[in-house]
Amino acid sequence: MATPTFKKLMYRLGGAGLDVWRRRLGLGEEQTAIDLCHRLVGLRGEASAIVIADEIISRFNAMNDDQALQFFEQLVDHFQPDSESLKIAAEFYLAEPGPEAASALADAALAPRQSVFRLLSTSPAGVPALVKLRERLLAFLAKNPQLQPLDSDLMHLFLSWFNRGFLELRRIDWQTPAHILEKLIAYEAVHEIRGWDDLRRRLAEDRRCFAFFHPALQDEPLVFVQVALTQDTATVIGDIIDEAMSDELIPPKTAIFYSISNCQSGLRGVSFGNFLIKQVLLELKQEFPSIENSLTLSPVPNFRRWVQSVLADPDLIETYGLSENRVARLTALDQEIKNNNEAADLLEECRPALLRLCAAFLLFERRADLPKDAVARFHLSNGASLDQVNWAGDLSARRLKQSFGILVNYLYEADKLEQNHEQLVNDGEIAASSIVKKLANGKHTRRAA
Amino acid sequence: MATPTFKKLMYRLGGAGLDVWRRRLGLGEEQTAIDLCHRLVGLRGEASAIVIADEIISRFNAMNDDQALQFFEQLVDHFQPDSESLKIAAEFYLAEPGPEAASALADAALAPRQSVFRLLSTSPAGVPALVKLRERLLAFLAKNPQLQPLDSDLMHLFLSWFNRGFLELRRIDWQTPAHILEKLIAYEAVHEIRGWDDLRRRLAEDRRCFAFFHPALQDEPLVFVQVALTQDTATVIGDIIDEAMSDELIPPKTAIFYSISNCQSGLRGVSFGNFLIKQVLLELKQEFPSIENSLTLSPVPNFRRWVQSVLADPDLIETYGLSENRVARLTALDQEIKNNNEAADLLEECRPALLRLCAAFLLFERRADLPKDAVARFHLSNGASLDQVNWAGDLSARRLKQSFGILVNYLYEADKLEQNHEQLVNDGEIAASSIVKKLANGKHTRRAA
Amino acid sequence: MATPTFKKLMYRLGGAGLDVWRRRLGLGEEQTAIDLCHRLVGLRGEASAIVIADEIISRFNAMNDDQALQFFEQLVDHFQPDSESLKIAAEFYLAEPGPEAASALADAALAPRQSVFRLLSTSPAGVPALVKLRERLLAFLAKNPQLQPLDSDLMHLFLSWFNRGFLELRRIDWQTPAHILEKLIAYEAVHEIRGWDDLRRRLAEDRRCFAFFHPALQDEPLVFVQVALTQDTATVIGDIIDEAMSDELIPPKTAIFYSISNCQSGLRGVSFGNFLIKQVLLELKQEFPSIENSLTLSPVPNFRRWVQSVLADPDLIETYGLSENRVARLTALDQEIKNNNEAADLLEECRPALLRLCAAFLLFERRADLPKDAVARFHLSNGASLDQVNWAGDLSARRLKQSFGILVNYLYEADKLEQNHEQLVNDGEIAASSIVKKLANGKHTRRAA
Amino acid sequence: MATPTFKKLMYRLGGAGLDVWRRRLGLGEEQTAIDLCHRLVGLRGEASAIVIADEIISRFNAMNDDQALQFFEQLVDHFQPDSESLKIAAEFYLAEPGPEAASALADAALAPRQSVFRLLSTSPAGVPALVKLRERLLAFLAKNPQLQPLDSDLMHLFLSWFNRGFLELRRIDWQTPAHILEKLIAYEAVHEIRGWDDLRRRLAEDRRCFAFFHPALQDEPLVFVQVALTQDTATVIGDIIDEAMSDELIPPKTAIFYSISNCQSGLRGVSFGNFLIKQVLLELKQEFPSIENSLTLSPVPNFRRWVQSVLADPDLIETYGLSENRVARLTALDQEIKNNNEAADLLEECRPALLRLCAAFLLFERRADLPKDAVARFHLSNGASLDQVNWAGDLSARRLKQSFGILVNYLYEADKLEQNHEQLVNDGEIAASSIVKKLANGKHTRRAA
Repeated sequence: MATPTFKKLMYRLGGAGLDVWRRRLGLGEEQTAIDLCHRLVGLRGEASAIVIADEIISRFNAMNDDQALQFFEQLVDHFQPDSESLKIAAEFYLAEPGPEAASALADAALAPRQSVFRLLSTSPAGVPALVKLRERLLAFLAKNPQLQPLDSDLMHLFLSWFNRGFLELRRIDWQTPAHILEKLIAYEAVHEIRGWDDLRRRLAEDRRCFAFFHPALQDEPLVFVQVALTQDTATVIGDIIDEAMSDELIPPKTAIFYSISNCQSGLRGVSFGNFLIKQVLLELKQEFPSIENSLTLSPVPNFRRWVQSVLADPDLIETYGLSENRVARLTALDQEIKNNNEAADLLEECRPALLRLCAAFLLFERRADLPKDAVARFHLSNGASLDQVNWAGDLSARRLKQSFGILVNYLYEADKLEQNHEQLVNDGEIAASSIVKKLANGKHTRRAA
Repeated sequence: MATPTFKKLMYRLGGAGLDVWRRRLGLGEEQTAIDLCHRLVGLRGEASAIVIADEIISRFNAMNDDQALQFFEQLVDHFQPDSESLKIAAEFYLAEPGPEAASALADAALAPRQSVFRLLSTSPAGVPALVKLRERLLAFLAKNPQLQPLDSDLMHLFLSWFNRGFLELRRIDWQTPAHILEKLIAYEAVHEIRGWDDLRRRLAEDRRCFAFFHPALQDEPLVFVQVALTQDTATVIGDIIDEAMSDELIPPKTAIFYSISNCQSGLRGVSFGNFLIKQVLLELKQEFPSIENSLTLSPVPNFRRWVQSVLADPDLIETYGLSENRVARLTALDQEIKNNNEAADLLEECRPALLRLCAAFLLFERRADLPKDAVARFHLSNGASLDQVNWAGDLSARRLKQSFGILVNYLYEADKLEQNHEQLVNDGEIAASSIVKKLANGKHTRRAA
Repeated sequence: MATPTFKKLMYRLGGAGLDVWRRRLGLGEEQTAIDLCHRLVGLRGEASAIVIADEIISRFNAMNDDQALQFFEQLVDHFQPDSESLKIAAEFYLAEPGPEAASALADAALAPRQSVFRLLSTSPAGVPALVKLRERLLAFLAKNPQLQPLDSDLMHLFLSWFNRGFLELRRIDWQTPAHILEKLIAYEAVHEIRGWDDLRRRLAEDRRCFAFFHPALQDEPLVFVQVALTQDTATVIGDIIDEAMSDELIPPKTAIFYSISNCQSGLRGVSFGNFLIKQVLLELKQEFPSIENSLTLSPVPNFRRWVQSVLADPDLIETYGLSENRVARLTALDQEIKNNNEAADLLEECRPALLRLCAAFLLFERRADLPKDAVARFHLSNGASLDQVNWAGDLSARRLKQSFGILVNYLYEADKLEQNHEQLVNDGEIAASSIVKKLANGKHTRRAA
Repeated sequence: MATPTFKKLMYRLGGAGLDVWRRRLGLGEEQTAIDLCHRLVGLRGEASAIVIADEIISRFNAMNDDQALQFFEQLVDHFQPDSESLKIAAEFYLAEPGPEAASALADAALAPRQSVFRLLSTSPAGVPALVKLRERLLAFLAKNPQLQPLDSDLMHLFLSWFNRGFLELRRIDWQTPAHILEKLIAYEAVHEIRGWDDLRRRLAEDRRCFAFFHPALQDEPLVFVQVALTQDTATVIGDIIDEAMSDELIPPKTAIFYSISNCQSGLRGVSFGNFLIKQVLLELKQEFPSIENSLTLSPVPNFRRWVQSVLADPDLIETYGLSENRVARLTALDQEIKNNNEAADLLEECRPALLRLCAAFLLFERRADLPKDAVARFHLSNGASLDQVNWAGDLSARRLKQSFGILVNYLYEADKLEQNHEQLVNDGEIAASSIVKKLANGKHTRRAA
């Protein structure tokens, strides 16, 4: 029996329920949200704690930015660890370091903010509200570094709460409840879903969609992945998004992961996509023993910006062996794309150079040893290998602006993931097909490679 | 779609699954559990992390006590916070205290043991295994205080994981799957369930049983409560446990909470019973608007031991106004009960004195301001009031030895819980019916009360 | 465990499954559908029976009208009861009438067609296919009375299969799977649902939608009803369909049944709506004790055609006391509506006459003692009473053409349904509010009423 | 949403519900059950129809045998087809035979008893009550042939209601709700389940249990089958029932169907077992591709009685070539078994003769062309083949008395079921292994075979 939420119970118990309780608890306007937080921490009677938590959440949701910022600052200030105890614990540790002193110090350093958040989470609406709260907090963070401790506290809790072991994988299809499906439409980040008919196509017999859910976020997906089941590798997104596919049940040979979207920006930094892809690989293998290859069809979001930086830097132009004419054409193309102009011929002309540059970009350009491109970083860190660089994979305005329309296939081979991952992390070596390597190392590519 | 667990998936994927992986990962005998913990923390490829976590768990489960103790000690030692960083953070805080320094200090003081535990929890068997691990740890703790930091780490995680907001209330009845019901038989702590027929009686139409479950412990109840729906207050346990009750559907007037059992000793210190009773009160109110009174029928586990201490102390004998003869009879009775002898007449003779003493014990005897008796402490802290002290409530050997067979009713009145709780915590005042107060304050009860 | 259907199993068992079986059974083109029906009846091995049933169903679905007609005729002819046995049974009954002879006669008269249909139904796709088959049969029936026996056989089976006791009431809301919701959009017969956004509005918090389902038609609704929960009675459909309603949870006082749609035309004559409304009344009463009134907002589909017949008949013109001018105006209005012209002023001018005529039409015009209007017949037979006749209830082209835009409220009062129903069936008396009665009996309404 | 049953709704709606309704409907004692049946048929208002149906069912359940017999007789008499119409229809058919006249005759011959039963079934308790009603009817039938028409009517309805297409296959395991499991204990007909611990063993990892359920009988299994998953063929029941089996997950090679039990004696003649075995074969094949053989371990319930008839008939003694001494030993053994005496040596002495006779009995003795033994008839008609005759398969008193302890394996080979079935039905040929054939045709077996 799934039991009704507290609030619904209250409602059903009649008008006497929530309102009476709120009145009895004296939750009047004269008390600020931060006052209520103090009260929450002091309380032990949980039924009323839930009512107060609900009240704090409603008030926070109604705050404008100034008010929210002030509330965040108050949280940081009012719920610090006790400075006296912390001082003693720190001194004691310095005097006699050791596991017990460290443990005591950790306890003393634990900010009561975490208790506030933990108590807020006991409301049925609590965890979703805290995820939204962090979303707002993140927006302030860059300009308000003094809020960093608050983010540490939330991350600390989120890492426990959104533990891999608590996530539930669910298949999403046309039998899925509508209120979940509408969230897919809202959250799809890679290839926009254009309404219910488009969605239905994406959930047809020859597709699979899986999402992670969390018990405290009920029917809110955390991350979802869309897969097309095909005979051959797809290199062009239109083949997947637009085409009607046969609904004959031919056992598929290839699984194409063509979209993976994080849904909760308040969970930034808590990573799920990695687990999701790997578990879905197992699920598909189980349902379709006929699948031989699993690969992605992915954007290269940081490529064009990098090309711009190359074009602006004579050294790099030399490194990549770009002729003057080539530089001129690429610069012209970049300008046309910026202006949303049709430039099919120019684009075609730049094809060899861009393909070569893209392969090189993905293989050689790094940020802290990992690939510079965010999507490459994700998949290659997962242990996938760079399999193919596809010209004209997606000619939408958005992809033209990201990567001149280039899409990439990353290959997931179950028995090489571990090794690929280790090689990248330990030796900085990226797993790639010989075709891509050859492409990247073509004449003039990078003299000093 | 609830998806199959990783291990099952592996199994289905054929012999090639788990074993091959284990071999590929080189999980040989030459590596100790603690070696594997180091490896686990170093890894990023989660699929293999799960396999290693599983391996560590199996090894731990196979350890004898000496091995387990050694493993615990190694965990404490090997996964301490980095002492250099912690030293710096402590010094920095002492130099410039403030929220940011405190937050940095908290981060530095966080023991990597928590990461070990968090990574172990990603195995589908992880959370249950950690609960069992703490159960073993608790057994060592008294004699091995050096393991305390480990317990702090586990408690810290458990408080996040077993957050009230993540618990699911489920009704347990005869429609409940057998593998859950058999756990009720195993865990019932208050009034033993004697097999499936007895269980069935406890789940009849005029009863309710509710339990809290947690998503990561699947079908393992955390705590459950048993309620009898009656017309009148019950004062004798046999009326609830033994009697066949009418299965006519007469709207009940009274809900008797006659048993509440914690199921997971590894979760000691993470409290659920309080929430459970309060949520069940709401559920019952919702299902049966006819219910007028909700009360418990509870043991008094610490009463006889206290009586023994009174009988052994002339001052207390005087305080409680016990005549020499009375002391002799009580002492004799105590001895008979100790020897498991029938002593019905003697018991009946001591009735007035024991009832009076019991009321006084519950109302006046304290431990750190709260009631000395563990069950009284639980219910009175929840905000219940002491309603009735019942002679011959349960004449089983166990209850005779605990409380001379006395049982007690605690009354839960929804709109007084808050106030009763506050009064107890702030003013040390226990809410009780006038009958019980009068009983406790009877002539000679306590001169100086 | 819901187990996969036979066909899916076959599919999963690999290519070897269904096709091999079909080949082994020799289901070649040279065998006609009717041949296969003969074979089906002769068979006992059920696994192959299901394959043959599937084959017959696919063939039928591929037939054009001529082929279907021929197939129906063959079914009638080929699967008659054995004429010799039937003759003997008939003669025996005539010679010695009595329960046993009658029972034997009934057995002898049972057409083997029913066996054919029953065997077809063992295919997972069988029952839905038979419902579609009857839909096609009904289309032929008027011109091909020789197919009547086939319809009798199907109705006989359907009455058993779609027994009230087998229907499952389910609530439909925004949590309902999308593949069911899309059927609501398709089947809504009363007020068209304009896409998913409109649907979502219809399933908001202040609405309820319920449907009957049948285990053999899985996720195909048989009939569904839409209810708006309001404070006051609605008299204008726009108030329900278009307006955004408050989503505050104010306990509703009124339940407005504003649409009831049958979904399966192949089940014509098997009535569900009656049960549905009554069960939904109970469900709503249970969820919202605050509801005081339950009534419909219904079209009057046969009103304008009746007005036309009045205008064309001098006797009726006299009976209803219509002045020459009135007749002219009504005739003009009727013409404008026929031509889809705006005629707001003319419509308003005719208001008093049309309201009066409509009340009279509903109260006095009968077909076989029951109300002539189909919707009135349905609700009044259910025991509802005629509560209000509403001007401009729905000014859409469709309703203008049906009833000059008039809508009607029928009132469902739980404790009068029985009595109202009996009075209508036994005495021909229609339950109506005094306002409607007065309106109908106004001066000149019907001299001889 | 599964909605609460009518009766529960009534109950929840308060005391005012069912009782008030019963009173308003005037369901007093002065009306007999048969009066109420008349009223039920006359009614159209369904809500009250359900109340009356409930009342009839309660009254029937309270009847003693004399009252039930009288009620059955009244049903036969009072609800005959209208004799006048039936006479006319019969005469018309005799005059002008043809499909339409036959169809009209079938309609006229349909007894209103079926309407009574159909209306009774609309009560939520209706279908289960009718199954129990037929159970009682069957007990009367032998001595009261005049009730035969009633049984025809019920069978007619049951064949429609318990259509293969409406049955739901569910796996039964230790996760199954207790109220269903307790029915398995009650219904197991082949090898008694001795309480919950025994049941748990039967539902262990290396077992499978499946049952058919019907939507109108909710959680009442219709028939269930128990399967052991093993490496090798089992020939002795103790190997399956008593032994603890390895719970290591070794992919099984053999599926042993060791028990199949019908649960509802009121559904006698409506066969499910056939479908069940075949669907379970598919399910197991799907879950365990490793399974190579599927066979039963079955009793031979009619063997010893047949041996007795042989021993009593000099012709048969000669036919089966039994020496005088052999006859004497067999007769002595038969007597010892009858008297429940230990006779291990004598049994062993008779082994060759009994094995030979058993093979011959199963292969050659027929009833209407099908095997004389009931269990052989079932499995061989399903298309299984007789694979092995096992000495000392089950030495319980029950099996010794049935078959001198012999058990038999029937082999289910998916691609021979059809052919085996056809050969048996068309040519009377039983499929058997060469070992069994050789055994049966041994010297002296049957001269004229």
